[in-house]
Amino acid sequence: MSTIQWNNFDTLESYKALASAAPVDLAAVMSGESGAERVAKYCVPMAAGLAYNFAAKAVDDDILAELAKLAQEAQLLEKYEYLYNGAVVNTGEKRMVLHQLTRGQLGEKVEADGTDKRAFYLKEQERIAAFARKVHSGEIANGAGEKFTTVVQIGIGGSDLGPRAMYLALENWAKKNNTFLMEAKFISNVDPDDASAVLNSVDVAHALFILVSKSGTTLETLTNQSFVMDALRKAGLDPAKHMIAVTSETSPLAHSDEYLEAFFMDDYIGGRFSSTSGVGGAVLSLAFGPEVFAQFLDGAAEEDKLATEKDLMKNPALLDALIGVYERSFLGYPATAVLPYSQALSRFPAHLQQLDMESNGKSVNRFGEPISYVTGPIIFGEPGTNGQHSFYQLLHQGTDIIPLQFIGFRSSQILNDVEIQGSSSQKKLCANVAAQIVAFACGKQDTDPNKTFKGGRPSSIIAGDQLTPKALGALLSHFENKVMFQGFVWNINSFDQEGVQLGKVLAKKVLAHDTDGALAAYSAMLDI
Amino acid sequence: MSTIQWNNFDTLESYKALASAAPVDLAAVMSGESGAERVAKYCVPMAAGLAYNFAAKAVDDDILAELAKLAQEAQLLEKYEYLYNGAVVNTGEKRMVLHQLTRGQLGEKVEADGTDKRAFYLKEQERIAAFARKVHSGEIANGAGEKFTTVVQIGIGGSDLGPRAMYLALENWAKKNNTFLMEAKFISNVDPDDASAVLNSVDVAHALFILVSKSGTTLETLTNQSFVMDALRKAGLDPAKHMIAVTSETSPLAHSDEYLEAFFMDDYIGGRFSSTSGVGGAVLSLAFGPEVFAQFLDGAAEEDKLATEKDLMKNPALLDALIGVYERSFLGYPATAVLPYSQALSRFPAHLQQLDMESNGKSVNRFGEPISYVTGPIIFGEPGTNGQHSFYQLLHQGTDIIPLQFIGFRSSQILNDVEIQGSSSQKKLCANVAAQIVAFACGKQDTDPNKTFKGGRPSSIIAGDQLTPKALGALLSHFENKVMFQGFVWNINSFDQEGVQLGKVLAKKVLAHDTDGALAAYSAMLDI
Repeated sequence: MSTIQWNNFDTLESYKALASAAPVDLAAVMSGESGAERVAKYCVPMAAGLAYNFAAKAVDDDILAELAKLAQEAQLLEKYEYLYNGAVVNTGEKRMVLHQLTRGQLGEKVEADGTDKRAFYLKEQERIAAFARKVHSGEIANGAGEKFTTVVQIGIGGSDLGPRAMYLALENWAKKNNTFLMEAKFISNVDPDDASAVLNSVDVAHALFILVSKSGTTLETLTNQSFVMDALRKAGLDPAKHMIAVTSETSPLAHSDEYLEAFFMDDYIGGRFSSTSGVGGAVLSLAFGPEVFAQFLDGAAEEDKLATEKDLMKNPALLDALIGVYERSFLGYPATAVLPYSQALSRFPAHLQQLDMESNGKSVNRFGEPISYVTGPIIFGEPGTNGQHSFYQLLHQGTDIIPLQFIGFRSSQILNDVEIQGSSSQKKLCANVAAQIVAFACGKQDTDPNKTFKGGRPSSIIAGDQLTPKALGALLSHFENKVMFQGFVWNINSFDQEGVQLGKVLAKKVLAHDTDGALAAYSAMLDI
Repeated sequence: MSTIQWNNFDTLESYKALASAAPVDLAAVMSGESGAERVAKYCVPMAAGLAYNFAAKAVDDDILAELAKLAQEAQLLEKYEYLYNGAVVNTGEKRMVLHQLTRGQLGEKVEADGTDKRAFYLKEQERIAAFARKVHSGEIANGAGEKFTTVVQIGIGGSDLGPRAMYLALENWAKKNNTFLMEAKFISNVDPDDASAVLNSVDVAHALFILVSKSGTTLETLTNQSFVMDALRKAGLDPAKHMIAVTSETSPLAHSDEYLEAFFMDDYIGGRFSSTSGVGGAVLSLAFGPEVFAQFLDGAAEEDKLATEKDLMKNPALLDALIGVYERSFLGYPATAVLPYSQALSRFPAHLQQLDMESNGKSVNRFGEPISYVTGPIIFGEPGTNGQHSFYQLLHQGTDIIPLQFIGFRSSQILNDVEIQGSSSQKKLCANVAAQIVAFACGKQDTDPNKTFKGGRPSSIIAGDQLTPKALGALLSHFENKVMFQGFVWNINSFDQEGVQLGKVLAKKVLAHDTDGALAAYSAMLDI
């Protein structure tokens, strides 16, 4: 492996080249036969039958060639290899970055804390699978010997958004495919109404709670744990018989008799990258069975492997990352909208919002030095077609251009459909996403400027047959690797989150009544 | 009333004055005693015990004076009066804009279609109230004479996002206050899995469906209606005994024997402004009772009245609007994050996203002429404290500044809480929002730039005692009026949505297989 160089983006040759690259007239190239040719040509296979199609992005072969040079000059693939072989890429926290190891071994054996980390993650997966099977069979049951019917995850941030989005993504698929074993619920917010409402909706006597906190010190999560334990005791139940923990081996929760069982992750997996670890594994294995979780991991593993492809045109995560950098750093777009045409992905944008914004919302490089170029964009989104009747007005005719990330599937999950006005709902759904891509790209002239669409609004689509566990794993990995590559380009550390600390410190001061000035005034206003 | 002048923003004297106004060093003014003074001074009472506090916005008395001049020069209050007195403010569609009339009479009697519109809206409210009471009493029941237990709204966009957000906002309040009468569910997406999943979760024999479409022609909604009717028939039920409509009197749904009853709105109420019409009224009156819906309207009516206040410092919607314009047009910020510290408001940001982005995401003025200044920002958000563990990293340390709109309440809704580490969950929730405001505004220096917070990130907070129906109405009205005032400043028509048309036209072409070029290629890719 060549020596890795960590240089600021604006010091690279390819930065200058891209800054002076001739822009693409998207409306022009997407019109007529040229458009059809682009749809055929700018399409890259992904795992699980998905494909990443970027025909409607404002790039051409020249810009793609420059982006490939950027990938080389910034050593993006070498850095990925360096990462999955166990280098301390999270420099701020001096940690390796190993979430890919939870789903496969891409490179050399990685050792830490005296163990082979792939073997460690596999062992935890197997322990979770065995535990889940015992819960499903009734071997592990509540105090009265009755089966648990519901699983409730208590966690926040990465311990909530990813697992919740994955659960919702597969809930109906699992029901249709007879692998729906337990309903899952989630408690995250420290707002007491969150825990109260979830507890009111659950038969606590038959509920198994998963406490998820890597450090074992997350205030919201520990608070909600106490909330739940209180409710269990009030119902005459023994909390220790209703709760498991997912945490690190060094946390105070790791070896406590407050839990039926504890499963382990470690400091090398950031919360927002933890859906394929026990953080997602416990709840998904309990809800849908370990086999479904294994398929999800397979999809992610295959997509991780694709991200090692040296040919840019065969590497969808790298392509997506580079095009995103081009849009953000050179075209100046402030945000990206994530628009899944799939109700099952209703919370997937919220997960990507954390994944991307928490990883790449940084103003210093990986050495802690201030940088003078923009980094990660705002990420937001809602499922289509709902979004079309909401914020698409601004996307089409607003004064800012916002790149779009569509996701669509040829088949629904439940396969229950009706034919109305000559087409099924699923066809209508797909027709809408096809129409939107072209409407955004090509626009439409009109003698009335109020009915004119300028077009030139770029989008890509990830399209597949059906949102299966494997396809979901591939989707998840795609975006994780996209975010990682972009962090490498911007030369930032995508794996720490120092920006969350100050708020925590000040909140503690408020609760200790150790405040003055504005903080004291706001505290008084809120009756704290 | 003086003659109304509709001038482009950049032609105004105050535009030039604001462009050259001395910027405020937010971190400096919010530090020390100056910060506490601002919290006390920059606070404006709202209805229902709420207050709008903008201490942490980058404004001072000089800028506020300029904003007051802008309000005068752009005749914002005169335009509001003009609007609520029934002028054709929606110029593109040649329609009056009357949503405020659904909750009160602010000015002169407004006549249209041969009726007094206030009387018309009141009559529909009373018809809905009477109908809901009969459903609650069992006088109106299913075919077997059994009470309906669930209400399912079928609608999309404004017929979904607002009513759904309002329902979720009051669900736990209603349960706590013994006014929870029927559970509500919502079907919106044309994705067949949306309707299937909702129908699978409902006892259809005891479900009452509300079809909501002003025009009676919304494709997604009619498709989902057929979906539901199909399911009812398969269950051996008569759809006409399970369905009501909320529509305009001229729609094909208005006088159909497919419905138990039809309730009316009209073309003077845009979908995104329709939560206080029958669009929200039917589902909320059925779920919580007409009295709760009436309290919600009272809150909105009081807040509408406050928006007529000539003194800028007593008019929170006007202040919020003007500060937002200043941030967007002069400080150049691309987005606003809506951050309610209340799990009940989990979908309130999605509603505001539609309200704001569909209203003000425009590139032509109200006469259809292109403008050369930015208009509405991106709106996104999630509840705190969840967001803190997600995208706040970028808000604190990202390279773009994003203004923040906090919302918080001193009391929870369910009033079930636990004391942990010396404080209740509700106090922790409030401590966090107080801490965040100060962290964003003041930042923190550190010898390690990775741990440095530059501060200078502006926010406001709407704070209140509790999220009651009345407080929710006030909140809703506040943002509706804010969006309206901003549209007046930018001289755009906030009440049409031509940007949604092109996608509809192209989707029809796809379904008719009348495509070529890129559209045909995408259609083939998606197997349409």
